[in-house]
This record gives sequence, structure tokens and C-alpha cells, in this order.
Amino acid sequence: MEPLRAVTEVGARFVATCEQVMPALAEHADVHDRDGTFPMEGLEALKASGMAAACVPVAHGGWGLESLHDLSVGLSRLAHGDASLTIAINMHLAATWTVATVAANERAKGRSAAAPNALLGLLGGGAIAMVNATEAGTDNRHPFTELTRLDEADGGGWSLSGTKIFSTLSPVADVIMVSARTRHPEGGDDAWQAGFALVFAGNDGITVNDDWDAIGMRASGSGSIVYDDVRLAEEQFLAGNAWGRWTSSGVLSLLSGNVGLVATFLGIAERAHDLALEKATRVARKAQGTAHESDPGVRRAVAEMEVALAGARAVLARCCLELDDLVRGQVLAEIPLADVHRVHAHFQAAKLIVQRAAIDVVDSAMTVAGGSAYLATSPFSRLYRDVRAGPFMQPFSPIEAWDYIGSVALGQEGDEAR
Amino acid sequence: MEPLRAVTEVGARFVATCEQVMPALAEHADVHDRDGTFPMEGLEALKASGMAAACVPVAHGGWGLESLHDLSVGLSRLAHGDASLTIAINMHLAATWTVATVAANERAKGRSAAAPNALLGLLGGGAIAMVNATEAGTDNRHPFTELTRLDEADGGGWSLSGTKIFSTLSPVADVIMVSARTRHPEGGDDAWQAGFALVFAGNDGITVNDDWDAIGMRASGSGSIVYDDVRLAEEQFLAGNAWGRWTSSGVLSLLSGNVGLVATFLGIAERAHDLALEKATRVARKAQGTAHESDPGVRRAVAEMEVALAGARAVLARCCLELDDLVRGQVLAEIPLADVHRVHAHFQAAKLIVQRAAIDVVDSAMTVAGGSAYLATSPFSRLYRDVRAGPFMQPFSPIEAWDYIGSVALGQEGDEAR
Amino acid sequence: MEPLRAVTEVGARFVATCEQVMPALAEHADVHDRDGTFPMEGLEALKASGMAAACVPVAHGGWGLESLHDLSVGLSRLAHGDASLTIAINMHLAATWTVATVAANERAKGRSAAAPNALLGLLGGGAIAMVNATEAGTDNRHPFTELTRLDEADGGGWSLSGTKIFSTLSPVADVIMVSARTRHPEGGDDAWQAGFALVFAGNDGITVNDDWDAIGMRASGSGSIVYDDVRLAEEQFLAGNAWGRWTSSGVLSLLSGNVGLVATFLGIAERAHDLALEKATRVARKAQGTAHESDPGVRRAVAEMEVALAGARAVLARCCLELDDLVRGQVLAEIPLADVHRVHAHFQAAKLIVQRAAIDVVDSAMTVAGGSAYLATSPFSRLYRDVRAGPFMQPFSPIEAWDYIGSVALGQEGDEAR
Amino acid sequence: MEPLRAVTEVGARFVATCEQVMPALAEHADVHDRDGTFPMEGLEALKASGMAAACVPVAHGGWGLESLHDLSVGLSRLAHGDASLTIAINMHLAATWTVATVAANERAKGRSAAAPNALLGLLGGGAIAMVNATEAGTDNRHPFTELTRLDEADGGGWSLSGTKIFSTLSPVADVIMVSARTRHPEGGDDAWQAGFALVFAGNDGITVNDDWDAIGMRASGSGSIVYDDVRLAEEQFLAGNAWGRWTSSGVLSLLSGNVGLVATFLGIAERAHDLALEKATRVARKAQGTAHESDPGVRRAVAEMEVALAGARAVLARCCLELDDLVRGQVLAEIPLADVHRVHAHFQAAKLIVQRAAIDVVDSAMTVAGGSAYLATSPFSRLYRDVRAGPFMQPFSPIEAWDYIGSVALGQEGDEAR
Repeated sequence: MEPLRAVTEVGARFVATCEQVMPALAEHADVHDRDGTFPMEGLEALKASGMAAACVPVAHGGWGLESLHDLSVGLSRLAHGDASLTIAINMHLAATWTVATVAANERAKGRSAAAPNALLGLLGGGAIAMVNATEAGTDNRHPFTELTRLDEADGGGWSLSGTKIFSTLSPVADVIMVSARTRHPEGGDDAWQAGFALVFAGNDGITVNDDWDAIGMRASGSGSIVYDDVRLAEEQFLAGNAWGRWTSSGVLSLLSGNVGLVATFLGIAERAHDLALEKATRVARKAQGTAHESDPGVRRAVAEMEVALAGARAVLARCCLELDDLVRGQVLAEIPLADVHRVHAHFQAAKLIVQRAAIDVVDSAMTVAGGSAYLATSPFSRLYRDVRAGPFMQPFSPIEAWDYIGSVALGQEGDEAR
Repeated sequence: MEPLRAVTEVGARFVATCEQVMPALAEHADVHDRDGTFPMEGLEALKASGMAAACVPVAHGGWGLESLHDLSVGLSRLAHGDASLTIAINMHLAATWTVATVAANERAKGRSAAAPNALLGLLGGGAIAMVNATEAGTDNRHPFTELTRLDEADGGGWSLSGTKIFSTLSPVADVIMVSARTRHPEGGDDAWQAGFALVFAGNDGITVNDDWDAIGMRASGSGSIVYDDVRLAEEQFLAGNAWGRWTSSGVLSLLSGNVGLVATFLGIAERAHDLALEKATRVARKAQGTAHESDPGVRRAVAEMEVALAGARAVLARCCLELDDLVRGQVLAEIPLADVHRVHAHFQAAKLIVQRAAIDVVDSAMTVAGGSAYLATSPFSRLYRDVRAGPFMQPFSPIEAWDYIGSVALGQEGDEAR
Repeated sequence: MEPLRAVTEVGARFVATCEQVMPALAEHADVHDRDGTFPMEGLEALKASGMAAACVPVAHGGWGLESLHDLSVGLSRLAHGDASLTIAINMHLAATWTVATVAANERAKGRSAAAPNALLGLLGGGAIAMVNATEAGTDNRHPFTELTRLDEADGGGWSLSGTKIFSTLSPVADVIMVSARTRHPEGGDDAWQAGFALVFAGNDGITVNDDWDAIGMRASGSGSIVYDDVRLAEEQFLAGNAWGRWTSSGVLSLLSGNVGLVATFLGIAERAHDLALEKATRVARKAQGTAHESDPGVRRAVAEMEVALAGARAVLARCCLELDDLVRGQVLAEIPLADVHRVHAHFQAAKLIVQRAAIDVVDSAMTVAGGSAYLATSPFSRLYRDVRAGPFMQPFSPIEAWDYIGSVALGQEGDEAR
Repeated sequence: MEPLRAVTEVGARFVATCEQVMPALAEHADVHDRDGTFPMEGLEALKASGMAAACVPVAHGGWGLESLHDLSVGLSRLAHGDASLTIAINMHLAATWTVATVAANERAKGRSAAAPNALLGLLGGGAIAMVNATEAGTDNRHPFTELTRLDEADGGGWSLSGTKIFSTLSPVADVIMVSARTRHPEGGDDAWQAGFALVFAGNDGITVNDDWDAIGMRASGSGSIVYDDVRLAEEQFLAGNAWGRWTSSGVLSLLSGNVGLVATFLGIAERAHDLALEKATRVARKAQGTAHESDPGVRRAVAEMEVALAGARAVLARCCLELDDLVRGQVLAEIPLADVHRVHAHFQAAKLIVQRAAIDVVDSAMTVAGGSAYLATSPFSRLYRDVRAGPFMQPFSPIEAWDYIGSVALGQEGDEAR
């Protein structure tokens, strides 16, 4: 059935570029998967194609891609070649999208957009950005990585300390947006302010560990980063919401990265489907002398993949288009939180559907392909291990997503921490 | 979450009109359900609203609605009030859409569109049309209702005989398009030609039986019609494809009616969902003194409804938009059959997803609402019985749909009869 | 596949008797379903077969059936004929089993079993017993029907008032065990004691309403009963646990009735399966000239029914045998509550599996049988409406069951009220 | 909930022994999984425990275990430690069971059981046996490995040639039962006879390849074996059925190995469940200060695992007990084929349920355990990769199983090849 299509012109360019560069990624994917190495040559291919700067505004040398729908469609294509690198570059693209949107928001409010503009300059010039959010034992809204305000005597500014895990893209990131908290100047003991610390690779006190060794997504460079008294200038802390609170801009920048993640798993499923169909039409049964594809069981399994993909594509696309509609021309922080929760609940529903579909399609595809699909050298090996990363992506785990969706539907989701 | 929205201006008018007239339908739905009577006052309300002529071209006094997507969205809203009447009026609207499209196609080919134009005149003037396709023991592509060519001595023309069942809308239809077959003039014993006989209510030889008595959809007027030597003029037979064959125009006119049917079941599910949420937020537990909605099990069940509806809406909308794209400005008969099969497979996937979602949502809604939902006087009684009609709608039963989808995906679906 | 089989000799007699009497029930089931009347002639047939006294000890004129597994197997067979009457007689059989077990427990403790013995005498003589537990807005562990102690001046004893709903078997019950609460003599304001009031049909103040009108189970006589100052002698209150508390004897007597309920839904599914297979092997397709059963989609749907039934039978049987093992020769009240929760969680798992299987099998069976299965006169009409009663049976609704099972597995289920 | 329990005394000994030896297996499982090596020290532990000879009759120095139910229960326990070694030793145990049953059958018919007795002598003395059945491009009933009868001039006997894959246990097997075919002496071109060639490790012409490298089950020693003109004595071919035909003894010996296979996947799921519960009760959420287990989503996920396991255990146990009943004291070849198909269909249903449950439970367990479950060093890594082997186990793949079950239910399964 119909794959997803871009809805904007620049989006179509992005999708076409992803399709063109995909085979180059596919070529080395298995080796990086086996060795757990980051696909440097793949990253270079992405940069060379120009797509890495797709979300940078034209004024800063990029393509000005704004549609998160089209971004997702392109990433789903890229994932046919290498899902690890896809979630890695998604991290950079989403960070870029957020910075570009913040810059536009600032301009719209008549404020100086000096800080985001400086960053966009770097990104337009080829720098790679990442968001660094995950910590052990807590969720994304409650970071324990901490910024301490330094006395003027010590030169002022901030000291950043903490440990992050699942730091996808870390081997190559030039700019790191680290979620952190700091005590609110006027607050009491429990008054924490959250935000992002803007850190540059190579700063003193940063250790990027080469310790990523997982079941799948092995080439995504998702090891840990330790921040030990990293010194930052005053303006390197972008203060956000009260710690633990939902805010419109917080959720929307999070969604900008998560739609692409989910699209990656759609791409994995599409790849498994394509491989299975290829196999089904090639395999013969020696004794019966019939092609595998003429088996009603095979047709049924193929149909189940088709239906799962049809459902997954449709709900992901519809949710992304709704998100595009919500943010188009708006100042993120001014979008009513209730609207944001509604779209977020829609996204969580889409994510549940896509992740389930992706896991099921890979499973069915392996069954259609037969016993050889279980061999370590089979292309299904990587797909089977990669696809299981999906449900771990925060927020939310499948365990939490249902409760969130239900509470939004019942009008129970306030701006309080859950 | 977001309900479906029209994408055209006239579509938006259609949807708004459906929403306005819906409560009037809801008012009498239970009585007609109980008694198995056709909602005459509801039909009058639909006519009065103008929506019954929505698919009639503007030139013939209608609204010129062409988007099957928007038609479906409106029907999903109408179904909140009375699903029986919704599938009945859908029959008329789809027949109108087909006639209007055929007329446009004829004009585009520079041919006289006299016959369809005449019909459009009637429809613009308030006539109600229906397609009459289902027979016992066979599928829609293989009608056994037969047209026999009459000798010139007998006045020429045709004699029509056969029995149809599930003849939705039959109590009020003015014009009936009866699927039938006739021996091909040049053919051998097995050479049958299929097509539609254009019959007018009240013609000699037609018996519309008041014998519809089903588990649900009891107000849809879906009894049997017996045609016994009904005499037709030469031009009252619209010859189509060879009997049993897939043709582009055949499938597309069939889909024009089926998208609205599926949308009806989405509407049933939405109604069940709304009732359940109302109930969940009202009910208290005497002993615990807590509201039902604060129960994590209730939130989960609500979330399951939300996710099912999100998936159903998205795939139905995406499939309808693809169908709109395919037929826009095209001569139906000239659209490549492979493209038609691809969209039809997409539709069958959407249908499987929506029907499953609709049945599951009604089930979950009843669970959320609690034991009173099992009473005959509960609004859930009708929804529970109506929703089960979905999987019986031809083509295809769930049994056949999987095989069809799989065979299209594997490139096995030729124009041969299955 | 293999239907369930009795594991005891008397159980085998019970199952055989159920099989023999079943056709007589089937004969009138549709009429009672349509009219919502209680099948008096069916009840007489059950009495005449002796099975109504199956759980009465031999010494009191019964068969001495103790195995709840075998009781359930027999009821699953009976449900092939009339599910309404099956859940009604189950109510009586479970009440009998509980009284017989309590009597044996009393004897084992060397106590007088005068009260239960008296009751067993009545039951051995043909009396029909029922438990009356359900009230609106609360669960079974928190009845609000209340017993008030009367002054000696008023003759002592108790006054019972309250309203029960879903009072299955009420049109014919001679003895009613009404769950109720009373203020604990020594307790403060919140100190309630729960237990059963033993009431006889025809006592002053009892109104058995003929108000049962539901989607299905229409012949089960499940209307409401109002108790308005019903006067009871001292010994007619069987004091149980603190109100709202789980107790071993409370849960086990509840399970004694619930295993048979669940077995009934298995029987409904088996009946639907049998009808579908009959239909599949009879139906031909006129155009193709092939039997329906040769369709791979039909084989698949049949297989899905087989698998669902295999799973449902196995888990119901294994759970019932575990329950039989737990209570065999034990004093109910002395069985550790943790063991009881473990078996109850097993039962809730079995119930979820059987109810889901039953609903799915009826659905698949209707699909296999084709469009005629949707007619009101089809045998599937009653099965489709009856089977949906399952998830409403307390405890637990599917909403609550998951939480209970999870909490037992996590060791969180104390004897506190939930 | 209740794990499965043995139903015979010797079975209880077997299960207890499996539980005792399991931790020793667990100790080295991860290393063998990583390196793809066969767990020699684990095999020695199994031999030392005596369990490897469990199915050898007492007269030949074994335990005389006959119940396939109890065999399966023990294997499910063993799989908690190392699933690879469990499917390997199952291969040996099932081969032993079949030889012991054949010997008993021969004696029962008053025939010499010299050949099976000789084999039992070896097995009682510590020899390891395996069945070698799988070939690429065909199913188990249609082996293409071929026996050619040699002229008396060449010394008579047979020459065996062919290639087998998925030869589990091959690194250590002393005795190999190779499924093969030979031209029927009286037959025409298409008349093939099937049966087993009895081969001893180290015979000339056998190459056991160290080429097993799969996603999971990496320590099972399942590489390929090439037979190139292996010379066999006359009596080393155990002639069976006509090639491609179902026979009672063929199916039953196959089932003897397959019940243990399925039990292994149950064991994998149980292990995943246990690990997840351990994790759920240990993990805390730093920000909220609450234990993970108090989350309703966690309780729900745990409950889903419980229900899946309850269903899987019950249906596997019931099917095994039915199989035990069928073969007890019977000559395998004389059991009516229809009965065998009925039990086989039951087994296929059980297999579908258990495999689905196992995959789902591992998935849920990983979700409950959280992101660390995705690391290569997590115990879930092996479970996730091992569990996917299940659906590949022949016969049948999930694709074929549905069709087989449906055809048996519809009475269409003759003794003809499918």
C-alpha cells in the first residue's frame, strides 16, 4: 500500500534525499551493528547530502524544513537502511527544529534572538547538536543533573554536574543541550527550576563514555555522559519551567524529537515487510513444487503486515499533521496546555499503535521468511533486535502511556507533575 | 481526541448539517429499533436539511459534494443519532455519487449524458435512490438475478427476475439500481454480462417485503425484494463488465457506498465512547466514596477506547483521501485496475481496523458504564446490536478480506474472478 | 477437540444428566428469550432429572457432588441448551454446595450443624435456593442492605431492609440468602458486620419484581427484590466477616458460584462453534460451486475458534481442580487467606480468558455462518446477546480483575478492603 | 500462580532433579550464549544428575519415566537456567522415549525387541541420542536425504547421503536417528519409503559442522550435518511410512519431542516473569519516592503476564495429559490416525497459545523491568533472543498451524500429504 508522502515542497526534497542516501547507510549497517561502532561514514554521507541542515532556516544556510510530518516521513525512509543512525540524526534534527522554532518565536515577540541565532549559525555551518535528557531512576521531567550558581568571586556563571545515560549521538555531538535543574533563587527547599544547559563538546569536565552495548540500536552511540563541575557562562542556562511541571514549550520540543523516533520504527517494519515479500515470492517448496506465496497462510501473514502498516502509517501521519497545525506560526509557550495535552495524547496513541505494529510486522515477516530468518547473518537479526528499542523510548513506556491517555480523555491532566 | 474534519468547503457544510440534524434522528431511534420500523420522520428531516441531495451536482439542484472523505465524515456524525438510518441514507448518497460521477465521465468523453442526467434531475428533485445487490448464496460480483431480452414482438426491452435480500432503504426508494446478469448476445453458454437494471418503485412485478427482522440495524428497512418478470425498456439496462470480473468502475462505485458504511460504524463507536465517559464521570462508588473515573482500570479502559478510535479515524480518513485523489477528474473506467485494487486493499485494511475498533470500543464502553449497560432500555443495547452488522457488510467478510489484501500485496490479483 | 470431562464418578453422573436434559431446555429457550419469561417447564425438567439436588449430601437425599470442577463441566453442557436457565440453576447449586460444605465443616469441628442441616433437608426435599448479593453502586463485599436488631420488646430478632438487583432465579426461589450488614454490637460508628440473612419466599415485606428486561440472559429471572422491614428470627442471620473484608470462607463460597457462571459462557461458545461448523459444511457458493468449508478463510476462522476453546477449557478446568484441591476436607474459614487469594487470582485469570474466548468464538462463529446469523430468528441472536453478560458478572469486571491479579502477584493483597 | 506439577512419582523425581541442576546451568548460560559454544559442563551436570537417562526403562538402568506431561514439566523448569541446553537435552530425552516405547510395543506384540533393546542399553549406559530431521526447503514429512540400497557385491546394506540443518545437540550426540527416504523396492518412480537411518557419531562420511550462529538458542549446538555416502548395515534403516504420509507412530514420536520444546518456551517466559517481579519490587522512582510496583501500569503489566502464563500452563498440561492418555499401554502404530490428528491439533493449539504467551510475557517483562532490560548484559537479552526460536519449530510454523487445526476440525485431514 501507499507509503507516507511529504506534504510540503521542502519536505518532499527531504524525503527524496533520505531515499537517495539510504542505500549508503544500509551498506555498513550490519558491521556497525555487530561491532557496536558509530557509523562515521554514514554521518558524513548525511552531512554531504545537506539533509543534516534541513531544519536550519534558509537564512542560516539550511532548507527551512518546518513540517514535523515531513521530517518523520523522511526518517521512516532512512530507517530502511540503518535504524541506529536514524535515531541518532533524528536527535540532531529535532534539536535543530526546536532552536529554529525558538528563534522564530523570539523574533515574533520582538525580542532579540541572539542566542538561538548564534546556535543556528553553528548548525548551519555543520555542527551536530543533541539533547541529553535521560537519567537512571527518573523520568524526563525530573532531571537530577544539577546547575549550581557560582559566586561572582568564582567568576559567576554555573557549575553543572550529573550523569546521563542513553545519550544517543554522543560520539559526534558538537553541541549538547543538557536537561538539568537548579534551585530557584527565591524558592524554598523544594523550589527547583528546570531548563537546559548548553554545553560544548570538549569542555572541561565532560566525559563521553564509549559504553553503549545493547541488544539493538547498537550503532546509535547511546552511551553515558558524565558532567563533573562543568563551568558554564550565565547565558548557557536556558531556564524553563518549574521542575516536574508540564509546559507547552517543554512538551512540544519533546514531541519534535519523538515523532521522528516513532517514524524510525515504522521504517524498520516497512523494511521487514519488504524483505519478507521478496522472500515469499522466491522460496519454493521442494516436495510440493509450489511457491511459498501460494500458501493461504502466507497470504494471511502478508495481509496482517499490510493491515498493521496501514494503521501505523495513517495514525502517525494524522498525529504529525495535527502537531504541524498546532505549532504553525505560534509561539510555543503561548499554546494552551490543554491543546498540547490533547496532541500529546494523540501522539501517545500513535506511538502505541506504531510500536505494536512494528514489533508485530517484524515478527510476521520472520515467520514468512522462514527458519533462515533466525540466523545471526540474516537481515532480520538486526531488525528484530532494533525494533524492541521502541517501547523503551521516553515518554512514555507502554505502562505509563495508557494512564496518561486515559487521564487526558477524562480531563484529569492538569499542569501538576504526575 | 480530534474527530474527523471535512477537507472541502461543501464537505464542511455537509458535516455541519449532519451534526444539526442528528439529534432529531436520535429522538426516535430507540422506538424504531424496538419496533423494526423505518424512520419516516427522520428521512423527512434529512430531506428537509438538503443533505439528501448533497451529491447531486449544483446544476441539478444539489450541493455538488464530490469528496467521499467528507461524505464519510458527515455520515459518521449522523450515526451518533441513528445508525440504521445512516446506512440507509448512505445507500442513497452513494448511488447519487455514482450517477453524478458517471454523468461527469460521459461529458468528459464528449458523450451524451442523457440517461444519468435524467436520473440526476429526479434525484435533485427529491427522489430517493438505492442499489440492490445482495443475494443469498453468492457474492456481489456474481448476481443470479437475470435479465432476459424480449422479442421485438413482445415489445422489446427486458424482463427482470430474481430475489434480493438485505435491501437497505427499500421501504422508501423511488429508484432502484438492481445488479443483474444477462446472457451475452454473442457469447456461448457461460458468457454472462453483468450490469445494473434501473427500476422504479411501483413498477409491475416488484414486491418489496416488510420482512426485515434482525439483531440490529432494525430501522434500516433491509428486507427482501422480489422481481418477477419486471418489464424494462432497452435503456434501463446499464451494461457493465463480464459477470464475475473485477472492473475499475465496478469496484469504485462499490467503494463509494462502502466508505460511508464503515464510517457509520466509526460513529457508533464514537457514540459508545461518549456515553461511557459521561457515565464514568457521573458514577460514584457508595462504599469507597470515590468517583468511578479515578479508578486506574477505568482510565485504562478509556485509554483503550481512545487509541482504538485514533487508529480507526486515521486509517479511514487516509484511505478515503487516497480514494478521492484517485477518482478526482478521472473517468472511472479508465483508471488502471491495479491502482483500483491497491486502493481497494487499503480500504479493506481500513474496514478491518474500523470494524474491530468499533466492536471493541462498544465492548469497553459497556464495561466502563457498568451493569446497567446490559439492560434492554440502556442506549448501549442498540449500539451493541447495531455494531455487529459491520463484519457482514460485503465485500468482504473478515474471512475473505485477509486473503484479498494478501493477494493484492503479492501481486496475484488479476481481473479474473476469485 | 476434547470437551471437558468429569473427574469423579458422581460428577460423571451429573454431566451425563445435564447432557440428557439439555435438549428439553433448548426446545423452549428462544420463546423465553423473546418474551423474557422464566422457563418453568425447564426448571421442572431439571428437578425431575435429580440434578437440582446434586450437591445435597447423600444423607439428605442428594447425590453428594463435591467437585466444583465437575459441577462446572455439567453446567457448560447445560448452557448449550439455555444459558439463562443455566446461570439460574447454578445459583441454586452453588448455594447448596456452600450449605453442604458449611454443614460438613461444622461437623468436623464437633459443632452442631443444626441450621445448615435443616436447610439441607429442605434442599433435599426439592426447595430452590438462591444467593442475593448485588446492589446498585457498590460491590459484593460492601452490601448496604441492612439488618437492624429489634428490641426484645418488639419480639427480638432482626428487621431487614434494602434493595437488590440482578436477583437471578428470583421468580422461583424458596430460600434466599441475602447479603447484608449490621452495626457491630461493640463497634463505633463505622463498625459494620457483614453476613447473610436467611429469608423465605413469601415472608412479609419481600417484593420480588418482575422487572428483568435485558439485552440477553432474558430467561434468567434476574429482576430486583425489595426487602422492607422483613422480620427474621435471631438465627436467621449468619454473621460473617467485618464489612468490606476479604475472608477465606467468603471468597470460597463466592467462587463456588462463579466457576459455574464462567462455565456457562464456555458452553455458549461451544454451542456457537458447533452451529458454525454445521453451517460451514452445509453452505455452498452458487457461483463457484464450492463448499464454504474449503475456503482457507473459513478454515482459519474455525481454527481460531478451536484454539480459543482449547485455551478456555484448559484454564477453567485447571483452576477448578486447584480449587477442589484447596477445599477438599478443609474447614473453609481455616484455609489461609493467602492461598485463597492465589486461587482467586487464578480464577480471575481463567475468567478473563474464558470470557474473552467466549465473545470471540461467538463473533467468529457468526462470521463463518454468514449474513443469516444476523437475523433475529437465527440461533446466533440469543448467543450473541447472552454472551455479553459475562464481563458484567461480579467480582470482578475486566476493569478490576487486572488490578486484583497484579496486586496478588506482587504480594500486595492483604485482608484490607480495596 | 501455581507452576505445573508432575502427576507421577517418577515424574516428580524428574522435576525435582531439573530444579536442582538448573542453577548450575544458569551459571554458564550467558557465556555460551555470547560465544555460541555448547555447554559441555552443563551436559555433564545433567548426566551426573541421572536425568539424562530418565526415559530409559528401569530394566536398562534408567528411571522409567513414561509421562510426556511430566517430562515437559521438568524441561520447563530446566529452561529457567539455559533454554539452549534444554532444547538440546529434550532432543535426547524424546529420542529415548520413542525408543523405549517402540521396544515396549514390540514386546507387547510378542516380537523381538532386539534392535531397540540394544539402543536402550547404550542409552542406559550414558550415550546421547538425537533425531536429525530438518532440511532446507522442505518439511519434516518430506526428507530428501536418501538411502540407496547397495548390491550384495558391495557388501549390501545402505549408503546414506544428504544434508541436515538445525541439528540440535549435534556436537555431542553419540547416536543419530536421521530421517531419510529410499525408493520402495516394488514401487514406481514416485514410490518413496520414509524412515530413520540409525547412525553413530564418528562413522565415515559424517561431517558435523560447527556452523551454528543464530539470533538465539546459541548454545544448542544446532549446526548442519552432511552425510556423504555413509555406509549402514541392513538393520540400521528403520522403515516407516510412505514418504509424505501421516502415520500414527510418526506423529506421536514427533509429538514426544515437541511437547518438551514447547515447555522450554514456557520456562523462558516464567524466567522473564520472575526477573520482572524481582525488578518491580526493587526499583524506586527518585523524584516521586514511590516504588515501581505501586504504579497501576506495573500491576496491569504484571497481571497480563500472570494471565498469559496461566493460560499457557493450563493448555500445555491438558494437551500433554491427553497425549499420555492416548499412548498409555498402546502400540503406537495401532492408535487410530483420527485420534492422533485430534491430539496433534490440540497440541498445535497449545503450541500457538504458549508461543504467543511466551513472546508476550518476555515483552511485558522487559517493559516492567525498564530501560536496563535492553542492555546486552541484561538477563533479558538472552531471553528475548531465545524466545523467538519458538515459532520456527516444525511442525508447524504459525502460518501452517492454523490451516492444519481448521482442517482437522472440519474433518478434512486424511492420511494424504498436505
